[in-house]
Parts: sequence; C-alpha cells; structure tokens
Amino acid sequence: MRRTIITETLGKIDQEVLLKGWVRIVRSHGKLIFLDLRDGSGTVQVVVNQQVSDEAYKTALELHPEFVIEVIGLVKKRSQKTENKKLTTGSVEIEAKKIKILAKAETLPFDMGGKDLNLELPTLLDHRGLTLRHPKIAAIFKVQETVIDSFRKACKEKGFTEFQSPVIIPQGAEGGSEVFEIKYFDHKAYLSQSPQFYKQIMVGVFEKIFTVNKTLRAEPSVTTRHLTEVTTLDAEFGFIDSWTDVMDMAEYVIKFMIDSVNKQNADVLKIYDATIPKVSEKIPRIKLQEAQGIIFKRTGRDNRQKSDLQPEDEREICKWSLEEKGSDLVFITHYPVAKRPFYTLEDPKDPGYTLSFDLIGRGTEWMTGGQRINDYDKLVENAKKRGIDLKKSEIYLQAFRYGMPPEGGFSFGSERITMCILGLKNIREGSLFPRDMERVDERFSH
Amino acid sequence: MRRTIITETLGKIDQEVLLKGWVRIVRSHGKLIFLDLRDGSGTVQVVVNQQVSDEAYKTALELHPEFVIEVIGLVKKRSQKTENKKLTTGSVEIEAKKIKILAKAETLPFDMGGKDLNLELPTLLDHRGLTLRHPKIAAIFKVQETVIDSFRKACKEKGFTEFQSPVIIPQGAEGGSEVFEIKYFDHKAYLSQSPQFYKQIMVGVFEKIFTVNKTLRAEPSVTTRHLTEVTTLDAEFGFIDSWTDVMDMAEYVIKFMIDSVNKQNADVLKIYDATIPKVSEKIPRIKLQEAQGIIFKRTGRDNRQKSDLQPEDEREICKWSLEEKGSDLVFITHYPVAKRPFYTLEDPKDPGYTLSFDLIGRGTEWMTGGQRINDYDKLVENAKKRGIDLKKSEIYLQAFRYGMPPEGGFSFGSERITMCILGLKNIREGSLFPRDMERVDERFSH
Repeated sequence: MRRTIITETLGKIDQEVLLKGWVRIVRSHGKLIFLDLRDGSGTVQVVVNQQVSDEAYKTALELHPEFVIEVIGLVKKRSQKTENKKLTTGSVEIEAKKIKILAKAETLPFDMGGKDLNLELPTLLDHRGLTLRHPKIAAIFKVQETVIDSFRKACKEKGFTEFQSPVIIPQGAEGGSEVFEIKYFDHKAYLSQSPQFYKQIMVGVFEKIFTVNKTLRAEPSVTTRHLTEVTTLDAEFGFIDSWTDVMDMAEYVIKFMIDSVNKQNADVLKIYDATIPKVSEKIPRIKLQEAQGIIFKRTGRDNRQKSDLQPEDEREICKWSLEEKGSDLVFITHYPVAKRPFYTLEDPKDPGYTLSFDLIGRGTEWMTGGQRINDYDKLVENAKKRGIDLKKSEIYLQAFRYGMPPEGGFSFGSERITMCILGLKNIREGSLFPRDMERVDERFSH
Repeated sequence: MRRTIITETLGKIDQEVLLKGWVRIVRSHGKLIFLDLRDGSGTVQVVVNQQVSDEAYKTALELHPEFVIEVIGLVKKRSQKTENKKLTTGSVEIEAKKIKILAKAETLPFDMGGKDLNLELPTLLDHRGLTLRHPKIAAIFKVQETVIDSFRKACKEKGFTEFQSPVIIPQGAEGGSEVFEIKYFDHKAYLSQSPQFYKQIMVGVFEKIFTVNKTLRAEPSVTTRHLTEVTTLDAEFGFIDSWTDVMDMAEYVIKFMIDSVNKQNADVLKIYDATIPKVSEKIPRIKLQEAQGIIFKRTGRDNRQKSDLQPEDEREICKWSLEEKGSDLVFITHYPVAKRPFYTLEDPKDPGYTLSFDLIGRGTEWMTGGQRINDYDKLVENAKKRGIDLKKSEIYLQAFRYGMPPEGGFSFGSERITMCILGLKNIREGSLFPRDMERVDERFSH
C-alpha cells in the first residue's frame, strides 16, 4: 500500500489509507483513543476504537508522544459539530484499523502537545533536537526558507548570478576586531564576517551577483538581536547610474520577499498573529540628519549630533514612517563617513556623508547597503587613512586595479528578517541552532 | 539612453545602442581599432573607425584590456565573410560613435585575450581577482551555479524543505581528527565537516530536508581532488521503506542535475570540449566485493581483501560500467562496517557490511550515502564501540531518543561534480577561491 501524506487525506474521504508519522498527542477516553498524528505535511486526528479494531487498540495503548508509527485506516468526514477549524485537516479523521510502531520515544521532558510551547529560552534551546518538532516552532523555519528562497528568486529575475563565498579568509576583511581566529595548519586564518570583498571581486566577473552565506562574528555581548553565526543574504552589482539604483534593487528585493511570505506562509502568520509589514508604493528615503530632526521635533530627544540612530530612534522613525508615510519600512541614508566601512563612497554633493543606507523596519535595522568606491587609488588611500592593512587582500585589490565599474550592493541577515516578520522577541528563536557567547548547541558552563 | 545588454544587440540591428562593459581585447589597425567588449552577458566586437567618429577614435587610442567603458554605437550586421561563428554575437558588430571611460586598468600581468588562459595553477590563483574574468574561467562557475541550483530544484520537486546548517559546532561531529579548531571566546569550538548530525535532527522536524553548506576539513595533504573548504550538497529523509529508496533519490537528483547542465550550459560544455556523463536508464548498483571481483577478472589486480576501492579501481569499475552497462556512473554498495561512520546501518542480511553506497563517476567518487541507524540504543552503542564521545551532541541524541523513523540520505561536493563534468584536471579550478594547506587566497610562504 502506498503511503498517503497527511494533508492528502482531505481528498481521500471514505478511502483506506496508509499514514506514517509521529504521535503528537494521545488522548485516552476508555475504549476510544484519540491520536494527533504529525508528518512533514501536517497533523490529522486518528480515532482508535476498540470496537472497530481490537488489534489497533492494543497497540494504541502503548503509544506515547513522539512515537513513530504507521496507521492503516479509513478517512472519514467529520460531522460539522466535531470539525476542528484550527486544523487544516480538521474536517476529516482517520478510523484506525491497524497501527504499527516504527520507533519508540522516551518520555518527553515537558509537554509538547499544546498549541504553544511555553518554555523558557534556555530550555527551548537545550532541547533543540526535540523542540523544533513543535509545529509552531517548526513553522518559523518555513518562513525563513521563504525569506532565503525569495531573495534568490528576486535576484535571478533581475539577471543576477549566484556564487559561493568562502568561510575561511586570510584576515579580518574590514579590519574589525570581532573576528574568529582559526588554527590553519601552521598558519592563522579567520572566519568571514561578510562576503563583502568576494562579492565585489565577483562584480568584475558576472557584473550582477548574489550569495547566501554563513557569516561569523565574535560578538562579545549577549543581546536579543545578535548571534555569532548568521545566514547572510548579499547582492552586489556594477554599472549603476546612481547610488539610488542600489536602493531601488534593495526595495524590489524586500517587497518581493514580503510578498512571498504573505503568499506562501499565510498559515504561519496566522499562528503567530503576525501581519506582514506595511510597505508604501515607494519606501520613504530620508537622510540621517533629517531623521534626527524629525525625532527631535516629535519627542524633544536631541540626538542630532549622533553619528547613528539609537535604538529608541529606530523605533521612533518607524512610528513616524508608518503614521506619515504609511510604511513600516524606511530607508535612512547619508551616514557619516567615519561610521561606514572604508570602501563606502562619499557623497560629492554632501562631503562628510556617504552614499549609504540602512533599511529600518519595525524599529530594527533590516538591511545595510550603499555605493562603493570603484577607483583603485581612492580605495587604497581610504584603507590607509583608516589604518586598514590590505596586504593580505591582494585578490580584492586586483579587482579594482584592473578596472571596476561604479557599483554597489546590500546585505541582510535571514534570522533578523524572520524575527521581524513574525514578531519574535529574541533572534535566537529565528535561528535553528543559534550560536552566541554562551552557547554552541550546549550551554557553556561558567 | 537605456543600456543595452551585449547579447541583446542581436535583436537590435541598425539601431543605436548604449553598451557598458570591460575591454577584453584591443586590436589596432591604423585608423581602425577593434575592441572586444565584455559585460555580464557576453562579448561583442566594437569597430572604432576614425572616419565615423574622430572623438571615439581618440578615446579608443587610450584603451587597454580591462578598462571599463561605455560605448554608444550602431549595431551592424556583419557580412557572411566576416561573421565570427565562435561568438554568440558574432553575426553583428558595433560601429562606435562615442566612447566614455568609466574606470581605467593597470597593465595586465599577462595576456587575458586568448581563447584559453594558459597559466600555471599558482599564477592562475595568485591573480584570482583578475583571472576569474576570463570567459573560459568564469564559465566554470556558471556550471557550478547550475549544479547547486538544480540540486535545490530536484529536492523541492520531491517535497523537501531547505534548512541552514551551522558552521560552528561544539565538537568534531564524527570523531575524526581532521577538524579545524577555533578560539570561541573562552572556549574551544570547531568547524563543521558535514551537516550530518543537523540534517538527521531535521528529519524529525520536516521529514524530508536538504541543505547547502560550506564544510571545512583540515585535509593535511595536497591532492588534485581535495580542498579544505567545500560547498556541500546534502539531502536526508525519513520513512524510507528500504535503503534503496535513498539510492533512488540520489539517482533522481544526479540525473536531474546532469540534465540541467546539459540544457543550461551547453555553451560551456562546448568551450571545454566536454560531454555530459552517459547515464543508463538505471545506474548500475553493485556490491563492493562484486566490483573487486570484476576488477580482478579484468585486470588481474587482486584488491578483493581491501575495504575500499583504490583510485585505479575506481577508474577500472567506471570503464567496466561504461563498456558493459552504458553508464559513466555506477553505484558501489555494501562497504564494510569499519569503513563507514558509526551511524551507518549494517545490512541484517549481510553482516559486516553496511547499507551504504558511493556513486562513482568517470573514475572519481561523486557522492556518498546510505541508510542510518534510527534506533537510539543501537546508535549510542555503536558510537561507544567506536570510541566516539557524544556527550557534546545532546541535541543530536535527542532526535533519536524521542522517536526517529527509518531514514537515510546522501552528500556530495559541488566542486567535485563541476570538475568531473567539465573534465578539469584539478579541483582548485572548480572552486572560485580554493583553500588548501598551502593557500587561503594568498600562498603561504614556507
């Protein structure tokens, strides 16, 4: 008998089917045992009635949550009264004729049967091999899959080529200190914090490129929005006419992504009581200084001399954007030269400020990007000025020494976006296997 | 004026266009200068005739390879006599009216204008920021993109979910010694050699999953087919009826991939004078011992007591497969228990041998896979027997302690496949930025 996938049962009323999956819940009512059976597609209710099958009933008595079983049974339409509107398969149930145990499970350390999995974060993560199976937890990573996949699709539609950027690098790419060091045979090497140098090199090859990578940052603080390992989405392209071309592409990608999640993960949004960010026809674009002026006017908080937005400013400017422009997302542009990496292009019309942007959404930074310096001499001069040693970045320098068009790009983390879309409280919930100062799967003891 | 992409010129005969790209070749014939102009889509010939435009001619006199320029010119159909059949755009040329230099390039360290780039490997890699631009080199990574992308497509068509596996891990996953160590704040951590543990955990979540990752191996030898950093393609799925389900899926994926390269990269295959591997209706599947018997019979070489195929055996069995079965690819199954990782399932009908396989193609291993132990007690017992310490792999163990169906999967490296399809001599040519014992971008001095 061929296996039926659980969500397919809806189309097989009054037919006998073979289902396979994990027991999610066992509810015993004397001679009637109800099981919630879960497979990769969804969950369905199985009714084990001793009067229908004594054999199935006897096996059902042994079952506990997370047992792996096969069920042969009849798909029956439920009466309107007993329908479960919260379940995709809630209009049917399976009348068990035969049950076979494929694998047993030890007693769970906590109840996994509820709609929510109300665990403290450390417990949730200490048991990641189990807790990820909870439908509400698993659903987060369906959204993340869509985020990453729609990034790829959006880029491909615009003629971008995907490439693989390395993890092991010869030195900290941008001179920062928060870089992991590895023992590389008799040498030292480092883990990539960003594919920045490689994506710029690749502009010289394919002109328009994108890449999905793990980036590693020795983040020495524990916050709700930072991880040491992030799945980063990067795009970069050459022959731009203006730096606003980069923002246009970023805007197109973000809208494509939001739209994809809305279409493909409507069920997850519902579970999380989340709404897709509101995006206006054109996402507002304002200079950092304008933003600080608006914030001062609205709140009396004077951060106009600061070189970046403070967290409360990010929240305030998003409030402004939503109220005044009908958009949950807003581009902040023209960060000061000193706040951006050495390869960022200065605005010739606004010296001291760069042709760079951050996309802020719902009070958090979503994305960062801008136009780069494509002139070799200027690039080297800038690196020196900042005390950045490019002697181990010869192949990066080659890309500019041998002709690079005006170019730019942007970068964002898939965990951050997932968190922001679903309204998760901690970025660790948006990572399958989160790594931070205190944890790599296991919690470090101190 | 809107930019025209070079390959679009074919459809714009007698129209004025704006092209942007890199100068690939400059050929000066007195008052006539011929340029090969390259952009992300391809290359086209630009004719600069002083009699047509003195201004363009003057600028053209300054041009050298890899200069980045804009050209405004007229698309002209070439006479049949002057057509260049080797170039996609060989039936047209651009009569330049105006040329603008966007970025200059220093004199190249070697000629990049030829059909081939005949450089020694170290030189090729020392100048990776430049050499990747050569059309024949760049083309390799169009094939690699197809390899990776078609893997994703094949998996998705079968209902697999993509997930992100971590790079930083708490210990060497499979107990091997060839693992890179990193300083992780006050602790030690390691770089993942394989997403094996995580993909098995994810079977418990989504049932059928796949993942694309960088895997890192402190390979202490320098060979033509090993790198320290590889882009690895992994799939794993549960509820298999037999271990042959895993081979069936692997076969489907490989065929899908080969077919995709054949369709999408026919031009690259032509440049490399490469043919797609021949695959029979069903890829032959033979036990290791049978293979050794066949080799003994064909060559007199008696490796029947060996626990693995020797490189010359891999070549011989592929020759046999092609001659006798019409297939460049062949599955070798039933490797001895001791040769496979601790989680590999032993064949109950053939004790001492595992339900595992390697796919061998054109004399090299392409892929490895098999059925895993899904019983918790057996898994722990096996790990202990091999001296493997799973105490830092608690979340992996949870996946089995709390119910895991019969499952299996497979894994392969995108660089190896790219090398084998195009007939490259060294795997380093199949990696954009190859890392080995002697090089991380730069060559280490000894």
